[in-house]
Amino acid sequence: MAEIIPHWLSKQANLSPDSTALELVDGGKITFLELQNRSMEMARKLAGLGVKKGSHLGILSANNLDMVYMIHAISYLGAVGVLLNTRLSDDELNYQLQDAEVSILITDDKHSSRQLQVNQVYAYDEVNEQKEMQVTLQLELNLEQPFTIIYTSGTTGFPKGVVHTYGNHWWSAISSALNLGLEKNDKWLISLPLFHVSGLSTLMKSVIYGMPVYLMKKFDVDLVHEAIMDKKVTIVSVVTLMVQRLMDKLGSENYPQTLRCFLLGGGPAPKVLLKQAQDKKIPVFQSYGMTETTSQIATLSAKDALLKIGSAGKPLLPAELKINNPGEDDVGEIIVKGPMVTKGYFKNEAANKQTIIDGWLHTGDLGYLDEAGYLYVVDRRTDLIISGGENIYPSEIENALMKIPEIKEAGVIGVADDTWGEVPVAYVVLYESISKTDILAKLSKQLAKYKLPKKIKFIDEMPRNASNKLVRKKLKELE
Amino acid sequence: MAEIIPHWLSKQANLSPDSTALELVDGGKITFLELQNRSMEMARKLAGLGVKKGSHLGILSANNLDMVYMIHAISYLGAVGVLLNTRLSDDELNYQLQDAEVSILITDDKHSSRQLQVNQVYAYDEVNEQKEMQVTLQLELNLEQPFTIIYTSGTTGFPKGVVHTYGNHWWSAISSALNLGLEKNDKWLISLPLFHVSGLSTLMKSVIYGMPVYLMKKFDVDLVHEAIMDKKVTIVSVVTLMVQRLMDKLGSENYPQTLRCFLLGGGPAPKVLLKQAQDKKIPVFQSYGMTETTSQIATLSAKDALLKIGSAGKPLLPAELKINNPGEDDVGEIIVKGPMVTKGYFKNEAANKQTIIDGWLHTGDLGYLDEAGYLYVVDRRTDLIISGGENIYPSEIENALMKIPEIKEAGVIGVADDTWGEVPVAYVVLYESISKTDILAKLSKQLAKYKLPKKIKFIDEMPRNASNKLVRKKLKELE
Repeated sequence: MAEIIPHWLSKQANLSPDSTALELVDGGKITFLELQNRSMEMARKLAGLGVKKGSHLGILSANNLDMVYMIHAISYLGAVGVLLNTRLSDDELNYQLQDAEVSILITDDKHSSRQLQVNQVYAYDEVNEQKEMQVTLQLELNLEQPFTIIYTSGTTGFPKGVVHTYGNHWWSAISSALNLGLEKNDKWLISLPLFHVSGLSTLMKSVIYGMPVYLMKKFDVDLVHEAIMDKKVTIVSVVTLMVQRLMDKLGSENYPQTLRCFLLGGGPAPKVLLKQAQDKKIPVFQSYGMTETTSQIATLSAKDALLKIGSAGKPLLPAELKINNPGEDDVGEIIVKGPMVTKGYFKNEAANKQTIIDGWLHTGDLGYLDEAGYLYVVDRRTDLIISGGENIYPSEIENALMKIPEIKEAGVIGVADDTWGEVPVAYVVLYESISKTDILAKLSKQLAKYKLPKKIKFIDEMPRNASNKLVRKKLKELE
Repeated sequence: MAEIIPHWLSKQANLSPDSTALELVDGGKITFLELQNRSMEMARKLAGLGVKKGSHLGILSANNLDMVYMIHAISYLGAVGVLLNTRLSDDELNYQLQDAEVSILITDDKHSSRQLQVNQVYAYDEVNEQKEMQVTLQLELNLEQPFTIIYTSGTTGFPKGVVHTYGNHWWSAISSALNLGLEKNDKWLISLPLFHVSGLSTLMKSVIYGMPVYLMKKFDVDLVHEAIMDKKVTIVSVVTLMVQRLMDKLGSENYPQTLRCFLLGGGPAPKVLLKQAQDKKIPVFQSYGMTETTSQIATLSAKDALLKIGSAGKPLLPAELKINNPGEDDVGEIIVKGPMVTKGYFKNEAANKQTIIDGWLHTGDLGYLDEAGYLYVVDRRTDLIISGGENIYPSEIENALMKIPEIKEAGVIGVADDTWGEVPVAYVVLYESISKTDILAKLSKQLAKYKLPKKIKFIDEMPRNASNKLVRKKLKELE
């Protein structure tokens, strides 16, 4: 039997009408009551444009207040929001718009003139000019009802639309609270895009916990630094590169005690960075999660951070995690289960059959559990390099490269080789000059010979996606 | 689709094996790993006695470690625990044993020789002497599966067995966490019986939050005082009388800052007591709940405590609460809905039909919501006194009586009257001597004439149930 809960935003508007829901860089603040009222207003305007229960509404927008109202408005109508990545090409967007059966697209100003194949396109201003239509808003949420669709970056094949129900968002927020605690002064910073699950899930935490979020348009190292130093932000979701840049910015200073968590996602972090953070007493919680798990599903707790560097911790209550068919090195595919895990991809039975087996989501990631049950994520299965019958994990070589002080960023891929099948090739961005020979010399002290990159290539910028994750696929395209 | 979650105790044994799960008055501590292992051991011994998935197992016991192991053992077997009140007479117990279809009863030493109508009875020692049977334990919990049955005190008619699913317990714990927060050093004290929902739900919070509980055999004012002063207990579930006795004990001292919440349940509290607590800066959170809602469903948040004395606050996320058919004074029956609310009474279709209507549980309690949505519980509907067509709420008269310094406790009931239909009669326990005339004189300054008790009776002890709640039914029996 599906559980029904009261609409979370209206609940907070009742419980804590005057508490801050959103804090903005310009100093603006929105209370839960205001957020409810503006979102309901937006819902009634959307209704006037024909949006109703079950409608698929695309949103193509950078983070801003209208986008927040829009997301909550969708929940008051029982529509489904398809959150689109603004960095995608028109072709890529058209694929997603069509695949997700989007009939109405809402955009911010910057993207309002893009030529996309959708019946109706409105900029926020055009929606705001609408009259409100008197419709019955949804004041209860059925946890099994779909709420959002986000496409996975799709390192192979076509992107797939991950459907998140209200329940997926709810349970994700709850599992995070059971892990990180719920403290009275919590304020979470969003600098990642709301069209990614990390940003979106934090927005949901705000209305589920009754907690303010500090909302940024995008990651800006100066503004994030300021938010931590002066705005009493307590938790920040970050990816590796952000931590690196924030630590560079911090220099010899220290963060105030109000900061209690850098929640680090987006793939395995180099050990050298985690050690640096440790030395500066920066509370980095490494985590593991993906769009399909509605953000993190495993997190390394603060008390274990010193003991288990490089681990993504243990699967949160109420998640389950196993290693499927582990090999001799205990490494196998990570499979997960739990009420925060998507029930499936939108209208993609083939992918669902392949990915969700007996209730377990097959993540495509490789990892192992140590004796105490801590998860170590090794790599994407598709990024695994098999060279002369040996498994080589790109992240291991990247970690070794990152220990060389002259190297700022590193990405490793496998390329076809007549003799070995595949061999590793390294791409590096430098802080300061160092020769390839010197790099190889330093690597050879750390790595077995067969793991040494057959080529090292210097590049100016590492290809990253909208949430700053390394995109190895783009490195492969450079080959 | 029913949600499946990992077994909560085994999850905590994996997440925090060495963290304290239980702390005892004698200084003993049990970790989550030990608690899991002992509970699993108990489960295997019970299996040897024939307990299996779906078995109804009675537990007749005061709070102790064996009882805790027994409750978790039941969950590893997928059996259903029927938690019996040790204060009940043999006849009352036999009714519940038969109604709940209990085949095996487990008792503590004190109750092992009672003559009860059940096939198999074992004292804890007898269970502990069993060999462990190798059975497959349940390592996942289906949230729709029944876990416990607790009979409601039943102020009218026969007691009814409230079935709690794993989901009811889960959601109750989560709604409480969303309300009170989850702080790193939380330690909750249980001095109420585990056979009542208040004690039991706190035990469940321990394994859901990964939080230690400080477990007492029963309420003892000296031991509770000590636990707050010296053992860093942060939250204590209490009823009115306990607060009163604790404040008497506290005298001119103050509690340490570690104490962050007295969660007050068990019926409306006298305003005078709440004001006293306020003056001493004791953080009393008045709450509203019952067995059917798996403990509190509304709580007055700390920040509102000063503004809304006497209110039970607002319904917690994810609960809904309404006043059904309010009268001219806005008072009506309180009805509630949400995933922590029982799906029904055991094999009692008549009661279920009468009580749960369109998913809303009709509580039988009278109350109203103020303009801001705060709940004020007025009385049990069955305790309402209708005198000459006027509604008189016993608690209003009790509150007025409690403002008289000489009066320690007060209970008011309606008795049949030829002229008025019903009239109020007051029972009081005194601190020091005062005449009935003086009491009436003081009351008449506070209450309308028709609300003045027609009789005042002095008694030595107020009839209370096992959780120290006033039992007006027993006062009626005195008439």
